[in-house]
Amino acid sequence: MEKPGKHILVCASFRAGGEPQGICHKKGSIDFVQYMQNELLDRGMHDVMISTTGCLKVCDRGPAMVVYPENTWYGGITGEEDLDAILDAMEEGEVCEDLVIS
Amino acid sequence: MEKPGKHILVCASFRAGGEPQGICHKKGSIDFVQYMQNELLDRGMHDVMISTTGCLKVCDRGPAMVVYPENTWYGGITGEEDLDAILDAMEEGEVCEDLVIS
Repeated sequence: MEKPGKHILVCASFRAGGEPQGICHKKGSIDFVQYMQNELLDRGMHDVMISTTGCLKVCDRGPAMVVYPENTWYGGITGEEDLDAILDAMEEGEVCEDLVIS
Repeated sequence: MEKPGKHILVCASFRAGGEPQGICHKKGSIDFVQYMQNELLDRGMHDVMISTTGCLKVCDRGPAMVVYPENTWYGGITGEEDLDAILDAMEEGEVCEDLVIS
């Protein structure tokens, strides 16, 4: 297999039963995934993978995502403008400091 | 926030609608998560986080999981013996080569 260069993991608040609950899901994180997937295609960022995850346990900072292997945690994402900022930074090999959870 | 030292991401084959499908889920990956969560507690591995993910796109190598930030991909996991082997390796700061997807 070929490992992705970067892997964006977006909290979708899935629980073991499969039914999403929680902050990130309620605040539209599934739509974020769809938007980012399209953006990755449009931008030709083919080495970036995106997945949903179960609850990332940072509910009070949600909607949240983490980028591995660089290990950058983002939170408080409100919509497409924030997602673009994260992808812009990623394209430049940088981190979007404004949205980092620290 | 305090980042986990290691983050085990177990493919649970979730799709955008929330309903799990696919190989990893059918082969019991949700049970793997439950087992590993208990083992992490028992072993006192408190800096290891575990989450489910949507489809990791390695269905033909499933059930699969990835450990970040070290970026180790495991597949063909059959049950508790394999999960113990992965956790044993992790405790030793090593990789369970037998189960690595390469």
